[in-house]
This record gives sequence, C-alpha cells and structure tokens, in this order.
Amino acid sequence: MNKERMAAFSDGVFAVAITLLVLDLRVPNQQVGAGLPSMLEYLASNLISYVAFLVSFIIIGIKWINHHNMVDELERVDNTLLMLNVLLLLFVCVVPYTTSLLAVYATNSQAPLVALFYASIWSIGGIFFTLFWLYAVRHGLVRATCSTAHVRARIVRYAFGPVGYIVGGLSALFNVYLAILIFLVVAGSYLIPISEPARQSASR
Amino acid sequence: MNKERMAAFSDGVFAVAITLLVLDLRVPNQQVGAGLPSMLEYLASNLISYVAFLVSFIIIGIKWINHHNMVDELERVDNTLLMLNVLLLLFVCVVPYTTSLLAVYATNSQAPLVALFYASIWSIGGIFFTLFWLYAVRHGLVRATCSTAHVRARIVRYAFGPVGYIVGGLSALFNVYLAILIFLVVAGSYLIPISEPARQSASR
Amino acid sequence: MNKERMAAFSDGVFAVAITLLVLDLRVPNQQVGAGLPSMLEYLASNLISYVAFLVSFIIIGIKWINHHNMVDELERVDNTLLMLNVLLLLFVCVVPYTTSLLAVYATNSQAPLVALFYASIWSIGGIFFTLFWLYAVRHGLVRATCSTAHVRARIVRYAFGPVGYIVGGLSALFNVYLAILIFLVVAGSYLIPISEPARQSASR
Amino acid sequence: MNKERMAAFSDGVFAVAITLLVLDLRVPNQQVGAGLPSMLEYLASNLISYVAFLVSFIIIGIKWINHHNMVDELERVDNTLLMLNVLLLLFVCVVPYTTSLLAVYATNSQAPLVALFYASIWSIGGIFFTLFWLYAVRHGLVRATCSTAHVRARIVRYAFGPVGYIVGGLSALFNVYLAILIFLVVAGSYLIPISEPARQSASR
Repeated sequence: MNKERMAAFSDGVFAVAITLLVLDLRVPNQQVGAGLPSMLEYLASNLISYVAFLVSFIIIGIKWINHHNMVDELERVDNTLLMLNVLLLLFVCVVPYTTSLLAVYATNSQAPLVALFYASIWSIGGIFFTLFWLYAVRHGLVRATCSTAHVRARIVRYAFGPVGYIVGGLSALFNVYLAILIFLVVAGSYLIPISEPARQSASR
Repeated sequence: MNKERMAAFSDGVFAVAITLLVLDLRVPNQQVGAGLPSMLEYLASNLISYVAFLVSFIIIGIKWINHHNMVDELERVDNTLLMLNVLLLLFVCVVPYTTSLLAVYATNSQAPLVALFYASIWSIGGIFFTLFWLYAVRHGLVRATCSTAHVRARIVRYAFGPVGYIVGGLSALFNVYLAILIFLVVAGSYLIPISEPARQSASR
Repeated sequence: MNKERMAAFSDGVFAVAITLLVLDLRVPNQQVGAGLPSMLEYLASNLISYVAFLVSFIIIGIKWINHHNMVDELERVDNTLLMLNVLLLLFVCVVPYTTSLLAVYATNSQAPLVALFYASIWSIGGIFFTLFWLYAVRHGLVRATCSTAHVRARIVRYAFGPVGYIVGGLSALFNVYLAILIFLVVAGSYLIPISEPARQSASR
Repeated sequence: MNKERMAAFSDGVFAVAITLLVLDLRVPNQQVGAGLPSMLEYLASNLISYVAFLVSFIIIGIKWINHHNMVDELERVDNTLLMLNVLLLLFVCVVPYTTSLLAVYATNSQAPLVALFYASIWSIGGIFFTLFWLYAVRHGLVRATCSTAHVRARIVRYAFGPVGYIVGGLSALFNVYLAILIFLVVAGSYLIPISEPARQSASR
C-alpha cells in the first residue's frame, strides 16, 4: 500500500508539472499581422520558448522514468523517505517557473545567469535523488533482490547528474544552445538501463 | 508494476491536459452590456472558442481510450518504450496551446495556417502512437495472446490517423468548420473496436 | 484493468477540475488600502467569489462520490461506455468556467441568465450520468450482484438531478442565493446511500 | 476498491494543489535591467514569494504524508467519510490562494491579518482531519489491528495542529518570519511516527 501511494502521488506531481509547462506557450492576442510571413516571423521570434518547453518536457519525462526505476527497487517506505520524495518533487514542480525564466531571458544579456539558475534546479533535484537512494539503502528499504553492484551503480549515476547540469549551466557563458544540448545529454544518460538487465527483466 | 505506473502517469497527463483546455474559455470581466441580447451576442462571438474546446476535449478523450486499449495489449515495458510514451504525451500536452491558437485565429485570414498547425500536432502525436506500437511489437513487449491479425490491424489504423489529420488541416483552406468535422471523423474512427471482439472480451 | 484505468483517469479529471476552481480566487495586487477595515471590505466585495468556489467545490466533490459509487457497480467497460464517461467528464471540466461566470455576474442584472447557464451545465452532466448508467445496464456491464431494485433506484435518482438543477437555475430569477441553496440540496441528495445498505457493505 | 479510489482522488488533489503553487512565482516580463546586480535585486525583492512557496509546498507535502498514514489505518469507507475527505481536501486546494495572499501582503502593514488568514486555513483543514478520524473510529471504519492507544495518539495529535497554526498566525503580529517558523514546526511534528513502530512495520 505504502509504496504504491507514494508512486501514485509522485506520478500525479510529475504529470501536472509536465503539463503546466504548456502554460508558458503564450498565444498572441490577434496582434500578429495577417499572412503567412508575419505568422512565421512570430513563431520564429518565439523559437526559444518552444525549445525551452521541449527540453524541460523531455527532461521531466526522463526524470519520471528514472524515479519509476528507482522506486521499482524499493521494498517499503517510511516517513523520512516520503519527505525526501516531497523535496525531490519540489525541484520538479518549479521547473515550469525556471523554464519561463529561461524562455524570457535566453535572448538577452542575462541568459547565462538564468541558464545557471535553471541548471541549479535540476542539479539540486538530482542531489535529492541521491539522498533518497542513499537513505533507502542505509535503512534497509531496498528489495533484498537488489544486488550491491546495482546499488553502487545507481549511486555513481546519481552523483553524475548534479555535476553534469552545473557544467551545462556554466557553458551558457559561451552559448545558451550549447548549454541546452548538455542538459539533454546529461538527462539522456539516465535512459541507459543500469547493468544486470537479466536480473531486472527476471524480477518483473 | 512497471506497466501500471506508465498507465498511471499517462492517465495523469491526459487528465491534466484535457482539463487545462478550460483555461482558454475566458470570462469577460463585466464589460458585457446588461441584458440578455448583449450576453447572447458575447456568447455568439465566442462560438469558435467553445467549438475548439469541445473538439479538442473529445479528441483527447478518444486518444486516451485508444492509449488505454493499446496499453491493454502490452505484457511489459522498457525504458525506450517509456520514452516513446513521454514523446507521445508531449503531443497531447501541447493541445491546450494549439486549441488556443485555433480559437483566436479561426475567424481571420490566418485560419488555414493555424488549422494546419493544429492538425500537425495531432498528426505527429499519431506517428508516435505508431512508433510506440511498432517498437512494442518488435521487442516482444506485447502479450502472447495478441494475434498477428490484431497487431497488423493496429498498424494500419495508426497509419490512417496522421494522414487523416493532415487532410483535415489542408481542408481548412476551404473552410475551418469542414476541417473540424474531418478531425472529429478521423478521431471517431478510433472508437471502433479492433476486430476479434470475442478474444478481447475473453481476455478481460 | 479496464475499469481501473477508467476510474484512474476520472479521478484525475475530477481532481484537476476541483483544484482549478481556486484559480478564480484572484489576489488583489496590493491595491487594497492598508488596515483591517479596507481588507475586510475587499474580502466582503469578493464574497460571491468565495461562495461560488465553495458551492462548485462541494458539488464536484459529491459528483465524484456519486461517480465512484456508480463505477463500483460495474463489472467491465467497453469503448462506448468510455466515451460516455469522457462526455460526462466534459461537464465537470467546464465547471471552473461556469463558476467564474457566476462569480463575476452574480451581483448584476445578468445574474439569472448566468445562474441558468451554470445550472444547465450541471443538468446536462447529470443527463450523461443517466446515459452512462442506462448504457451499462442495457449492455450487461453491471455486476451480477447488483439487484434490479438497485438499478431502478439509480435511474430514478439520476432523473431527479437534471430537473433539480434547472429548477435551481430558474429560481435565480428571484434570488441568486436561493438558487445556490437549491443546487446544494440537489447535490446533497446524492450522498444518501441507495437502498440495500446490507448488500453494499457486504460486497466491499 | 472503495478506499483505493478515495486515496487515488486525494493523491490527485494533493498533487495538483502542490504543483499549482508554482503559478504564483511570476516571471518578470523582461523589465529587469541587464546584469547580475539588477537580477539579484529582483530575486531579493521576490524573496517572500519564494519563502511562501517553499513553506506551503513543504506543509502540503507533510499533510499528504499524514493523510496517507491515516488512510493506511482504515478498513473501509462510507459516503459520509468520503464527504469529510472532500471538505478536508477543500482546505488543501485553497492553499495556492492563501499563499499568494501571503506573498503579496507579507511585506506591508496587512501582513499579520493575512498570516492569520493563511494560518486559519491550515487550522480548519486540521479540524477536518480530526473529524475524519473521529468519524472513522466511531463508525468502525478503522482496521481491527489498530490499537486503542494508536487511535488516541492520533486524536491528541490532530487536536494539536489547529491550535498550533493559530498560535503561529497570531505570532505574525510580532514578525511574519516567526509565524512561518512556527508553521513549519507544527507541520514538521506530523512527521514523527505515531508510537508502536513495531506493529506498523509488521502490518505492511
């Protein structure tokens, strides 16, 4: 029961946060001139909004997959773990805000600062993934079938994310699109299944 | 566990996206004149908003039913399928935005362009339904009880949607309401159960 | 599986719609004068917003309980029933909009018209509850343990709601608060368990 | 079935309410001057918004954990309990509104009044937690394995919250940040597991 409700609540938060991103895509209130060229010009001027939306959507989606895989390895939960989960979700919920900031400021001189802020949120969220996993491991909440190798592989992986996002944020000093590319690569790395595929598919 | 959480997350995203559509229905801020005629006039001038809301609501609802039926045929999931599902959901989440665009521009000269954009989102979303299904079939994620005939019927059906939506979008060059009608017919076709009803009802 | 996912999607839509109601409670942007009196005056001028929020919240909550009880009696679902469910949910999702309209217009001359519109949405939603139940009964989707008396009691009850809401809406010609009271009484009647409590508690 | 759907609906409402909090974090529309100092100045002037967001997020998270633990002790539900749950959720759903009020008014002379209003909502919500639990206990809806000591401990705890929040609200007469600190302490106390940890972990 316990673990299932934590998963249900987390799924809800991920689902709402990922969908709220669309609220940043503003519809021009009929102020765009008539004809195809002016419409295309409007869409082009909004390009960074679309890119920011897309990137945040994909990263939240990957975070959800990662969360899902991590929770799969749990046997049970306690109140401290539930609270760590709430804090982990906090850094998912603010993404629609940091995405808006990025979309609005990406084309002016404050872009690096805002990209770093955007990266920091992913990074701190990643630290809570680590804390969640370490707490679960140390308090015996992980399934007995989860091998030591798997536990360690997950720790290494969770240490990589926060560093990777900060590197991405700093790279915005050179180019915002380079930063975005690094964010995607860092997030994408979490799609690679953790070792032991045989054991995993067997346990399902 | 795995498949159930994918279903729960997807249900959440569909539920939020379908409900966010209502945010486009704007309440006039007491600027409508007193009396029944001015209120009716206001409602009439907003007609396209209501129609766009209704059409998007019904199509998202049908997409959810279709998603539900497709996931019913799965045995298990892997990370790639989860990612394809995230991308499929991306094209559900942006519907409140494309619906707003349609509502705002449907009555002026940019209507065809916007209707085509609206149709493209449904169409690309449909392509991800196809990719999702093809991937699941090729990687043995579909239930053993799912016959080859059923697999093929579903592929044919998923190839129809993206083409149908684009035809609908292009028809907006003639009339936006004709386009909307075509969108509804294309979406409605997904309500027809896929062959083998006996097998399906037996497996539940 | 089938029925559970319909319930999950419906729960999601009800949860989002009930929570979106709060977006209508607008925070004055520091334009309220300093001191307790001016704040209380502001709150008082907003009274109808709070009342509309509260009433819509309670009615959606009761509709959810009612939906939950009705779905409890189902054995399985089919695509048509899923579509009727989507349409039933449509009339839940628009409630944040009709509630806004009611809050904005309840204190001026268009109050009766808007109250009637508000009532109509509840009423049409009620008709879809009836259609949902009738369809389920006629197509053998209801549990075998559900007695004929129970089936009939539910039909009678669902016929009452739509009429009751319209009566409430018409009563707004005299007084909006009377209309609101009638809405609450009609909705509240759905909290009374349907006959056969012994059977019901046994089946859980 | 019954209890699970109540949990699912509640999880949905908690998830949406906690995520809607982010909508209060407004993105300045490119009106912030260029350079790091002006951006930091803007962020500093928004500090209370971030604090209010954070505090409400954490308290809703803890309320969810508390709700989850309470529902864990239930055997079954009835319509009255479902309605008490809807009312309990009402005081979660309005938190994005009271948080906005707090963020906007915390820095001017109306801060104590608004903090007291904010506290009252938590307090009334707490009263509904008490009513929910008392009703469940008196109508035999609690699991037989739940000891009398546990039932009483929960009643004492639920009596503490509403009083604690009001004390916090009144302390805003002296300092808004003191009030916020008290809110966090009161909420945090609900993370302490209720006695009998041996029995609890055994029953899972």
